[in-house]
Amino acid sequence: MKRYIAEAIGTFALVFCGTGAIIINEFTNGAVTHPGVAVTFGLIVMGMIYAFGDISGAHINPAVTIAFAYAKKFPWKEVPAYIVAQIIGGFAASGLLFFLFPENELLGTTLPHIGAFKVFVFEIVLSFILMLVIINVSTGSKEIGVIAGIAIGGIVLLEAMFAGPITGASMNPARSIAPAVVSGNLQHLWIYITAPIIGCILAVLSCKIVKDEQCCDENC
Amino acid sequence: MKRYIAEAIGTFALVFCGTGAIIINEFTNGAVTHPGVAVTFGLIVMGMIYAFGDISGAHINPAVTIAFAYAKKFPWKEVPAYIVAQIIGGFAASGLLFFLFPENELLGTTLPHIGAFKVFVFEIVLSFILMLVIINVSTGSKEIGVIAGIAIGGIVLLEAMFAGPITGASMNPARSIAPAVVSGNLQHLWIYITAPIIGCILAVLSCKIVKDEQCCDENC
Amino acid sequence: MKRYIAEAIGTFALVFCGTGAIIINEFTNGAVTHPGVAVTFGLIVMGMIYAFGDISGAHINPAVTIAFAYAKKFPWKEVPAYIVAQIIGGFAASGLLFFLFPENELLGTTLPHIGAFKVFVFEIVLSFILMLVIINVSTGSKEIGVIAGIAIGGIVLLEAMFAGPITGASMNPARSIAPAVVSGNLQHLWIYITAPIIGCILAVLSCKIVKDEQCCDENC
Amino acid sequence: MKRYIAEAIGTFALVFCGTGAIIINEFTNGAVTHPGVAVTFGLIVMGMIYAFGDISGAHINPAVTIAFAYAKKFPWKEVPAYIVAQIIGGFAASGLLFFLFPENELLGTTLPHIGAFKVFVFEIVLSFILMLVIINVSTGSKEIGVIAGIAIGGIVLLEAMFAGPITGASMNPARSIAPAVVSGNLQHLWIYITAPIIGCILAVLSCKIVKDEQCCDENC
Repeated sequence: MKRYIAEAIGTFALVFCGTGAIIINEFTNGAVTHPGVAVTFGLIVMGMIYAFGDISGAHINPAVTIAFAYAKKFPWKEVPAYIVAQIIGGFAASGLLFFLFPENELLGTTLPHIGAFKVFVFEIVLSFILMLVIINVSTGSKEIGVIAGIAIGGIVLLEAMFAGPITGASMNPARSIAPAVVSGNLQHLWIYITAPIIGCILAVLSCKIVKDEQCCDENC
Repeated sequence: MKRYIAEAIGTFALVFCGTGAIIINEFTNGAVTHPGVAVTFGLIVMGMIYAFGDISGAHINPAVTIAFAYAKKFPWKEVPAYIVAQIIGGFAASGLLFFLFPENELLGTTLPHIGAFKVFVFEIVLSFILMLVIINVSTGSKEIGVIAGIAIGGIVLLEAMFAGPITGASMNPARSIAPAVVSGNLQHLWIYITAPIIGCILAVLSCKIVKDEQCCDENC
Repeated sequence: MKRYIAEAIGTFALVFCGTGAIIINEFTNGAVTHPGVAVTFGLIVMGMIYAFGDISGAHINPAVTIAFAYAKKFPWKEVPAYIVAQIIGGFAASGLLFFLFPENELLGTTLPHIGAFKVFVFEIVLSFILMLVIINVSTGSKEIGVIAGIAIGGIVLLEAMFAGPITGASMNPARSIAPAVVSGNLQHLWIYITAPIIGCILAVLSCKIVKDEQCCDENC
Repeated sequence: MKRYIAEAIGTFALVFCGTGAIIINEFTNGAVTHPGVAVTFGLIVMGMIYAFGDISGAHINPAVTIAFAYAKKFPWKEVPAYIVAQIIGGFAASGLLFFLFPENELLGTTLPHIGAFKVFVFEIVLSFILMLVIINVSTGSKEIGVIAGIAIGGIVLLEAMFAGPITGASMNPARSIAPAVVSGNLQHLWIYITAPIIGCILAVLSCKIVKDEQCCDENC
């Protein structure tokens, strides 16, 4: 139970700060700036890894949880509870942001700025690179230590920085579901649910090519 | 005594650099930029943790000191002297900034940019996330080591980045009291004294939910 | 074979994110910003070092591979396969970016903005400083650990930041070849192939002056 | 001799990249941006600490060398050679930048933007905070390891960020002498030679207040 609460709080903080940055940037006509939004996403992921890495593994992302299970590093039977906790955390954040900024129409929803299929491909690549780093710096299914925090936070920061203006740089269904549902912008949500899962699983497959298969299947 | 001086110097540096960045950004019509202000706040906290973490714990924040005492990691009888030292450090910084920039009217005072109650709630959440990370990366009541510096500095940076334009992103009574008093802008100061303390105590309570209670009450 | 695939994936990620940032910055009329482009380059190098440092050494740069061989830390016979893998990774990235942004004319090609000879000298100095740090923080020919990731990523970030607007801040033939070939801008490519190799070899020579020669020739 | 060469190369890299960022920012009408200049200064100091920390201590700053000697952590008889090496490195950088950008009139010279006395006071405070961190994170007179690189680089970054538009944020005579001499702007140079030395010595004095005196006098 403790681990599910950690995942819920961690995802709450991610969505509250990350989509909060987008909302406040709109509210203030750009005071946060786009690089500021990207920095916010990267550093809150880093902070949550340091806070909860040794409790729940600090996945705070259903695609990462599924990929760890696919890699046999995390039990499949734990996956549903983890995902529910992550989604609850996201909804708590979007609900609080709706209370604070009721006039905001998108609440930080991820939307494609080029064709939907291209964004689908792009999000697969972004999630692939993210999971590639996660699986190589994690201990089992836990994101622990200085390297995990900096490496994973850094990847989220850079992908939000360069791809945010095109795809929204979700890489995380829990980050995209709550804003889309609370603000009622559901038309492109399927991209941000399917592409991160596909990308993260591809990263696990690639791991088996560049490392001993055992290292990707079990802890090593 | 050494520890009180460390807290005073650390808080001096935090307020001098952080509110100095705000003042110089106004003085130069935006040369520092808002992201530059946020980076300044985050990195000076990081630097002071590296400098004083093993001497005083580098709280440099009365709300953090109170929360550590509430978590039974820091003796209550030390709290008043720590807070006095932190506030003295803040006043030394605001006094020096007033000497350097006498024409500045706010001296970096934190002010709400949306309704006061919403800012009160917002500052509670910001302080909650900050203390959540602090309590998980500290050793007892001391912020020590690479992880503490990067994690806590990173949280301060991102919260200043995204919430600064709305709430001022204080999370720290000592950071808010001196500029408000020296510049004579006291009307909203209560928010920035009460909300950080409430938020930091809530983080300690949450710690008891996600970790073994003993870990939050004592060192572990 | 595993190591060549790691080099190919690492260089793919570097070129996809880095030159992708340049392309998206143009596509969005500056949403990423130039500092955002520099941050993207620095952090993807850092991330790839954390992901592949213990597999292939995470050179993802032919000039670095050649310099390590020149320093007798890496077998010359491995050099061609490493360089081929790096160049293949770069072409995969530029090809994917061409699919996503077919209207972009440069695809992030590095181009001189002052006289070609000055840019040639400038790129030698940039590559010299980069390799100076790499050779001092690596273990043998492997870029491993917290220091390697932060130090080398930081150098790439700062050199892209300050020199990017003048030279393109390549320091890496594999980063420059694919965009130049795919977009058909080959006229200045010789600079970005020769200067990084010269600069990196000069750094190895300087290593023998400031350290015991044995340390630069072998692991220590 | 090896250590003097390390100091010369380190200071060369600092002045080449740091003042190069200022010059290129002017040359490109602001493409680097002021925050980009500050990031360049901070990260090159970090990189040089990682590269040369275990060789020469990576002072690359005469005020730091003098303060370490004053703290009895560094032999006084070594001080002149260190300072000469640092100044030679600075001149090599300014000379190369003059070759690359002969039309630039200031070459990154530090100049006061408010009254000279206030800037003098300001630079003392900046250097005090810098040396405060250096003396607490160094091992003896050597800036070594992850903490030293990140902490000291972070302080340089934030001080350049917030104080750069007012004082130039020198904190380092070797960073100021070469650009001032090569560009012929000597009128305010005295500030940037004296204030850093005073500030760094004050930090050593403060160390004796917050730590056991032995720790500041010798290694501990």
